Order: sequence, then C-alpha cells, then structure tokens
Amino acid sequence: MDIAELSNKILSRDRRALARAITLVESQRADHRAQAEELLGTLARQRRQALRIGLSGTPGVGKSTFIESFGLMLTEQGLRVAVLAVDPSSARSGGSILGDKTRMERLSRDPDAFIRPSPSQTHLGGVARRTRDVVALCEAADFDVVLIETVGVGQSETVVAEISDLFLLLLAPAGGDELQGVKRGIMEIADVILVNKADGDLKPAAGRTCADYSGALRLLRKRPQDPPGYPKAMMVSALEEEGLSQAWTELQQLNIWRREHGHWNQRRAEQARYWFAQEVRQTLLAQLDSPQARARMADLGDSVAQGDQSINQAARQMLTTLDPT
Amino acid sequence: MDIAELSNKILSRDRRALARAITLVESQRADHRAQAEELLGTLARQRRQALRIGLSGTPGVGKSTFIESFGLMLTEQGLRVAVLAVDPSSARSGGSILGDKTRMERLSRDPDAFIRPSPSQTHLGGVARRTRDVVALCEAADFDVVLIETVGVGQSETVVAEISDLFLLLLAPAGGDELQGVKRGIMEIADVILVNKADGDLKPAAGRTCADYSGALRLLRKRPQDPPGYPKAMMVSALEEEGLSQAWTELQQLNIWRREHGHWNQRRAEQARYWFAQEVRQTLLAQLDSPQARARMADLGDSVAQGDQSINQAARQMLTTLDPT
Repeated sequence: MDIAELSNKILSRDRRALARAITLVESQRADHRAQAEELLGTLARQRRQALRIGLSGTPGVGKSTFIESFGLMLTEQGLRVAVLAVDPSSARSGGSILGDKTRMERLSRDPDAFIRPSPSQTHLGGVARRTRDVVALCEAADFDVVLIETVGVGQSETVVAEISDLFLLLLAPAGGDELQGVKRGIMEIADVILVNKADGDLKPAAGRTCADYSGALRLLRKRPQDPPGYPKAMMVSALEEEGLSQAWTELQQLNIWRREHGHWNQRRAEQARYWFAQEVRQTLLAQLDSPQARARMADLGDSVAQGDQSINQAARQMLTTLDPT
Repeated sequence: MDIAELSNKILSRDRRALARAITLVESQRADHRAQAEELLGTLARQRRQALRIGLSGTPGVGKSTFIESFGLMLTEQGLRVAVLAVDPSSARSGGSILGDKTRMERLSRDPDAFIRPSPSQTHLGGVARRTRDVVALCEAADFDVVLIETVGVGQSETVVAEISDLFLLLLAPAGGDELQGVKRGIMEIADVILVNKADGDLKPAAGRTCADYSGALRLLRKRPQDPPGYPKAMMVSALEEEGLSQAWTELQQLNIWRREHGHWNQRRAEQARYWFAQEVRQTLLAQLDSPQARARMADLGDSVAQGDQSINQAARQMLTTLDPT
C-alpha cells in the first residue's frame, strides 16, 4: 500500500481512501500496524482539528434519531460530519441489531457525512486505541465535527470523554422526579444534557426531567473549564427537529469560551499525555499476548504451580524471552 | 550477605535470620532484590508448607485480641505460629497507632510465635508481592500456621485470600438483623465467620448475629471446595478464650477435607499461576518507574501534547529505550 498516496487522498477528502485507512488502523496485523503508524504520523503533521463531541445515552432514548437529525442540521449549515460508534459490547452481543448505516439512513446518504460502525472488538483498550486513530483520520480528512457515540457499557463513557472536547448526555423524559439511575460519574463528565422526545404527550414529562437535571447539575462541584451556566440541561425533539440548533449554539458557545480561556488546548494536551501513557502500558503488556508468549507463560506457570521454581525466578525467565520492540 | 548461610539459618528456625531475610525481601534496592530471589529460590526447593489462614475484620471487632488468644492456644498445642499484617493504608495513616507487637504483647514474647508488622508501602501490588515472599520465608522457617491479617481496605481481602488456604472473617455482634454492611464479595471468600465478643452483655446479640450470618451463608452459591455445612458462622470470645479450640477444629477439618479431595493442591497451583502472571505484568510495567523512564515519558508526553508526533510513534520510541531484564 502506498502510504503517501493514501495520505494525500485523505487530505483531499477522499471518502474511499478514508474508509481504507480506517480498515488499516483497525487491523491487528503487524505490517498493517506499521503502515498505520506511518500514515497517522504523516497526517498528524497537518494538525487539522475537528470539534470532537462525545455522546452517550442508553438504548431507547432515541440516539440514532438524534444523531441523524443533528447531523443533517450540521451538513445543511455546510459542515462536514463524521459519526463513530464505540460499543465494546457489540462483539459479545453479535453486533447491533441493525447496522449503524441502516439506523441513520438519510445521514448515511449525505455526501458531507461519514458514518463508521463500531468494530467487533471486545477489549475496551483496543476500542479506545482504534477510536483515537479513527478520530485522527477523520480530522485529517477535513471533517468539522466528529460525533463519537457510546452506548454507555461499563467504562466506555470515560474512554469517549477522554477522546472528546465536549460531552453530550442524551436522556428520555422520566416519570416523576426520578433521575433515571444516571451514575454520578456520567453526570460529572457531561457538558450538556439533552432531554430528548420533548414532543407530543411526553413534552410535559420532558420539561420536568429537564428541570430535575438542571437542579442536579447545579449541585455538582464547579469545574474550571465551565463558563457560568454550564453544564446545562436542555430539551430537544430529534423526531420533530426541535431545539437542535439551540443545542448546537450552546455547544459552540461553550467551545469558543474554552478555546479563548485556554481550556481547550490544555485539555487536548492532557488527553494526549494520558493516551500516550496508556499506549505505552498496553503495548508493554501486549507482548504477553502472542501465541509464543502465551505458551511460555503456561509452561512457566506450570513449573511454578509444581513448586519447581519460585514465582520471581519464573517471572524473570519470562521477561528475558520478550522483545519490547 | 552470604545467602547460603542465611538460608541454612532460616531452615533451622533462626528467628533473627528470618527477620533479616524479611528485611531483604522488603527492600527495593536492585542488589537486594537479586539476593532475595536467590534466597527464595533456594528455600522453595525444601517445599515446606504451613497452613495459611487469611483473617479480615474491621477495626473494633477485636482482631488483635483474637489473634493473641488464638495464637497462644496454637503454641500451647506445640504449633509454631507466624502473624503477618497486610495494611496498604498504614503508610497513608502513618502506621498503626500502636505497633503490632504492642497490640499482641503476650504472643510477641512467645518463642513459638513470630509477629511481623505491615511495612510502609502504599502500593497494593507491592504489598502483595512482599506478603507472598514473607509467607514463603515463614514456611521455610518451619512455622506450622501463618496468619495473614488485613484491615479490609479496598482490595486487600482479595489479595490475602489469593495467598491463603483458608479465610476467616471476624465480626462483632450487631444490633437487630443488620448484616453490618459486609460486602457480598467478602462473604463469598470467607470459609468461616467468627462472631467475636460472645461474652457478657453482648452474648445474646452475638447469638443473633451468628444466626443471621448462618442464614446468609446458606443463601450463597455452593462452592466445590466446601464439604457439607461450610462455609459456617460460629461464636467466639477472644477475651474469655471461649470457642477458640472449636474454631481451630473446624478449620482443621475443612483443611483436611480439602487436602483429601484435591482442592488444596489445586488451589495452591492456581494461586501460584495467578501470582506468576501478576508478577510478570507488574515487572513489565515497573520498567516505567525508574527516574530515567519517568523523565523520558514526560518528554515524549510533551512532544505528543504539542502535536510533534503521534501517540503511537512516541509510544514506540519509549519502548525502544526500555530493557526488560
């Protein structure tokens, strides 16, 4: 594969080249990994940046409808939008019932939108690495907004928040004043909460839910990266395409404020340092995943279990057989 | 240090040699680590084994009094007893208010007992490794029983359970039918629950608590390593030295049953494999802890944060500077 040519095509917004590059960075093959690193290194020098928006919401809140409506509104404004999914559970559950492109039919046909479904990987570390790389590819391909969607399984929100500039939490109207069992940790990473389905019979309930969350957000500790009034809760109807442009205005205002006050740069730098440290640790431990290393671990584990040598001696023997490069 | 001589002294039950060896395995110095590995390797060949009993209980349940009474009962029966403490919080809290030897004054003067306080280490991984090594030293020094005590901070019970043959949970009498907020995970690793302070005014409450826990234990999933009737809850009074020999009889019966049915061997082998794998992972990651590695990580982290190179490229560069041996 000609990496220089692939790189140039991506920079000139070639969608097929982008799709090929994503397949490359998702590959586990050593030669593909080397090519992917070369490609990402080349593209990084362009320093193109999109607005990265993380989005979480449990099944049933209308996430697909929201992404489709929100994405189409953005492309109508002349913006280019990429949608990525982070779903570490998809491998276990055999993938989404419907593929992401089927879920977002209109958006997937939009020439200014690019939708990439979640790959089949169970390992959250692998998902995180792949998502970081795909975001970098989308930024190089000159997308203005990258939406990173997660279903909120286990730690996936934290991973997405560590990749995003802004984090959106999508909720459905709830009965009474219950807070839908949203974990405190998720509340703390949300920048804007959108109560979806504020339409028809559900509109009053959406209003109450929105008020409940506005109250709950005011009780959270003030974060230095927030201007007055943030984080905030708002109502939207993805179905009736209501409130979407207001939500976008809020997100842009927040983004501009953070850029002007240095928080945006600081956060991207912190994220880069964090993922670099994670990558070093994971690559170190990945040496234990090769078939040879596994076989050697099993043999040495047996000899330790049989008392033939001490744990420390066996560990030292194991480490001498590894080559970190 | 003459490791062969130290080894021989430990094998002939020399307490001062044992204390020196523990100081050696607790040292972080590279030359000490090498000597400690040589010593542990030499001693492992003797394949001496003690009964390892893990013991957990929150402050106030009378753990020290129990260990003193229980330990003295064992030494009166001609058994040699070592007591180790696992307390990852001791470094943070500035150590126990009173040292372990002060807590157990009579036992500490007993020539057949050996008490070693928790070292000042915050890192649970470090505590686990040190405890495994000290248990191995105590077994080589021909102790019959090794009691491993933990205060139940965070994951310390799980660590102790992975080092022990049997796990004791010590509880105080509770009012009403409350289960004292004992986590399900702790219930699931307990082999015998001892309700302490079954004396004086507290005796009726101890009886109720014991009945409550007996009921709760019956609701747990049956484990293959348990004979009928286990895990079980019993009452003891460490203060009045009541119920201690019954508890010891129960522990011995359980131990004999597990040995006869192959569970004891199987569990020790599993533990050895588990700790071997942990040791390999920790040693791999420990390469990042040297001052040189930290400085290099910081420099490369900066270059990634400034966008001068990709995360993957920087990670690869970092790994080439490490030497796993």
